[in-house]
Amino acid sequence: MYKISDYLMVTVEEAKKLLCENIQHTGVIEVNILDSLNCVLASTIISPIDLPSFDQSSMDGYAINAGNDLDRKEFEVIGEIKAGDDSNITLKVGQAVRIFTGAKIPLHTDSIVVQEKVTEENGTLFLQEKIKIADCIRKIGTQIKCGQIALEAGSIMNPASIGFVASLGIGKVNIFSKPEVSIIVTGNEIVSLDDELTNAKVFESNSYTLTSALSQMGIRVKSTHLTEDDLEVLKHKINTCLINADIVLITGGISVGKYDFAYEAMLACGVETIFYKVLQKPGMPVFAGKFRRKLIFALPGNPASALVCFYQYVYPSIKQMQGFQNIYLPTAKCKSHKEINKKTGKAHFIRATLSDGFVTELDGQDSNMLRSFAQANGFIYLGKETEKVLPGEEVEFHFLPFNTI
Amino acid sequence: MYKISDYLMVTVEEAKKLLCENIQHTGVIEVNILDSLNCVLASTIISPIDLPSFDQSSMDGYAINAGNDLDRKEFEVIGEIKAGDDSNITLKVGQAVRIFTGAKIPLHTDSIVVQEKVTEENGTLFLQEKIKIADCIRKIGTQIKCGQIALEAGSIMNPASIGFVASLGIGKVNIFSKPEVSIIVTGNEIVSLDDELTNAKVFESNSYTLTSALSQMGIRVKSTHLTEDDLEVLKHKINTCLINADIVLITGGISVGKYDFAYEAMLACGVETIFYKVLQKPGMPVFAGKFRRKLIFALPGNPASALVCFYQYVYPSIKQMQGFQNIYLPTAKCKSHKEINKKTGKAHFIRATLSDGFVTELDGQDSNMLRSFAQANGFIYLGKETEKVLPGEEVEFHFLPFNTI
Repeated sequence: MYKISDYLMVTVEEAKKLLCENIQHTGVIEVNILDSLNCVLASTIISPIDLPSFDQSSMDGYAINAGNDLDRKEFEVIGEIKAGDDSNITLKVGQAVRIFTGAKIPLHTDSIVVQEKVTEENGTLFLQEKIKIADCIRKIGTQIKCGQIALEAGSIMNPASIGFVASLGIGKVNIFSKPEVSIIVTGNEIVSLDDELTNAKVFESNSYTLTSALSQMGIRVKSTHLTEDDLEVLKHKINTCLINADIVLITGGISVGKYDFAYEAMLACGVETIFYKVLQKPGMPVFAGKFRRKLIFALPGNPASALVCFYQYVYPSIKQMQGFQNIYLPTAKCKSHKEINKKTGKAHFIRATLSDGFVTELDGQDSNMLRSFAQANGFIYLGKETEKVLPGEEVEFHFLPFNTI
Repeated sequence: MYKISDYLMVTVEEAKKLLCENIQHTGVIEVNILDSLNCVLASTIISPIDLPSFDQSSMDGYAINAGNDLDRKEFEVIGEIKAGDDSNITLKVGQAVRIFTGAKIPLHTDSIVVQEKVTEENGTLFLQEKIKIADCIRKIGTQIKCGQIALEAGSIMNPASIGFVASLGIGKVNIFSKPEVSIIVTGNEIVSLDDELTNAKVFESNSYTLTSALSQMGIRVKSTHLTEDDLEVLKHKINTCLINADIVLITGGISVGKYDFAYEAMLACGVETIFYKVLQKPGMPVFAGKFRRKLIFALPGNPASALVCFYQYVYPSIKQMQGFQNIYLPTAKCKSHKEINKKTGKAHFIRATLSDGFVTELDGQDSNMLRSFAQANGFIYLGKETEKVLPGEEVEFHFLPFNTI
């Protein structure tokens, strides 16, 4: 059995700092731009072309050459240029061509006049207004020039940046890869959803909660394992998962009960402790460790505690591995709707709703209750020294990545 | 060619109202709970069990029977119950059993005393503190009782609710299905990323932007087609897509130029107009129509305009089809950092950043520029009658579902 001195009991803030110091980026991989969505760019992208790559019309209308006479009202229409036409027309003074949005303008174009402000009759164009020089022309390279930086390394790829990169002709980009996760759910009492619920047993829910939370981050679960509370079985599962996945999540078996084997099993597998136990409620029995570049977390078996620990420790770790700068749940200062009392010594994460700038504690804060979690907008975070919050007093609120308001 | 009277030119507000009136829910399908993430529940879920389904210990410790004597300090330890054990032990007054978190408590248990507050020696348990009746016991059905509503129809499934449903032994739920989308990108000037960029051509980016924006909503693109500006080809593509997909998105060819065939092609395919042209900038030439239960949108060919129209009209339509109540981008009143001037007659969507409660217009608002879009947090929305916004004046801000701050 482990000795008490093996523990590394820390505060919430220390736990987060220790994780930051121990996490390395995942590898860099080249992916199709469509697969880069929500990922962090690992290399700066330089534009290989001018965009636009030619002077083009931004409207349907006529390209004209007015010489220096902005009051000229009549032009000879000498042709037509559609979008995509590689025309080699050169306009002489007094000439015009019919042109369409996105089309390459002819040489010696002064301006484009939009079709709503002209009439054309028997090959002659009649203008209604004074000419504005260079109107409705998108000049070559005005969006970006060849050789300029299109996107800096560290940018997060979104639908607009993916489209922007595509418009430069770039189909693949380098990103920090997504870590793959394996889940081990422990407990003699758990039965799978496919099995019958016999007396004293409970349906397994942690793998569903965690798989969904990971899925919302775009992270794939590589394998899920259900095991009884057995040291040898657990050691075997941990060894297998540490080979196949980048992150291993264990639920249950991490307290100090006689049948809690997670800690002992991880040590036996060569896992180094980053922290073990955090001064918080819920989720005090939580472990983070590393094995070479891989991370392993043992989360409490109670479903709500497991999910609190996921969002406080696993979520930011995955974000940091992927190269994100803002790794934590978004936070804001919000006013507490009601008085809250707690004991000092542990930080509290309280599931709460946010409405009109006020946060309200949900009923059902017991560490096994997922029901209130399903309705929560986030957590009220009270530091370990806090004893009392008065109605209207500001508290730190952590927004969950669901139930967005 | 169409006549001007075929148009249904509307304001932004009218366009949104017309869409709401014309959209029906997608069908209801039964899915594995893991596939229900971020979907709307189509049927209310009734709990088939009590949760917990037996009285259980919430801590590691001892179950005791103290009779009525709360000061009793010694108990005979008669056994042990692990989580998952279907024990049939009945405690007599003065007896205790070793018990662990989640284990079923024996009959006639008064309370659980936690292991930190007792000592055990030669089969005798010694208590240090006065007994609190019913401490650390989770009673049967305290989270939910058999027959009670677990989740109402209309709930959005999130990681916690998926876990909660799993803990009730429910592996499948009814949700409104996700619509499938096909994309048709039109334009003689566009070339695919796999091709060479020749003179007067541009790389196709709209399919990348739209596919990514859909992907972020969890919506799959069924097929993507690139076509030249040709009425017959376009009609054929539209017909095919209307058979295979629930929503068809066309980009380009929707203005009134000589080579804009989208409107004519859609009418020829039997599409009914919901609206055609919206008094807005960018994205005035935008079309929404229906074909039986299917929707078809023709978005402007300019990349930034296409994406503005996507978030204002396609995004909420997809949300409504899926049964969401809040279908639009989240909005807030924010202060404008700078003065903004515009002409009346059209509403404006201005790509902007939000910082410290102030919104700032981005450079590069031209309808072809995706670059500023990639950095935007959202749109400043100015109604069609607005002419001027003063620094510090409040404006409506629409948050994009990326670059969250």
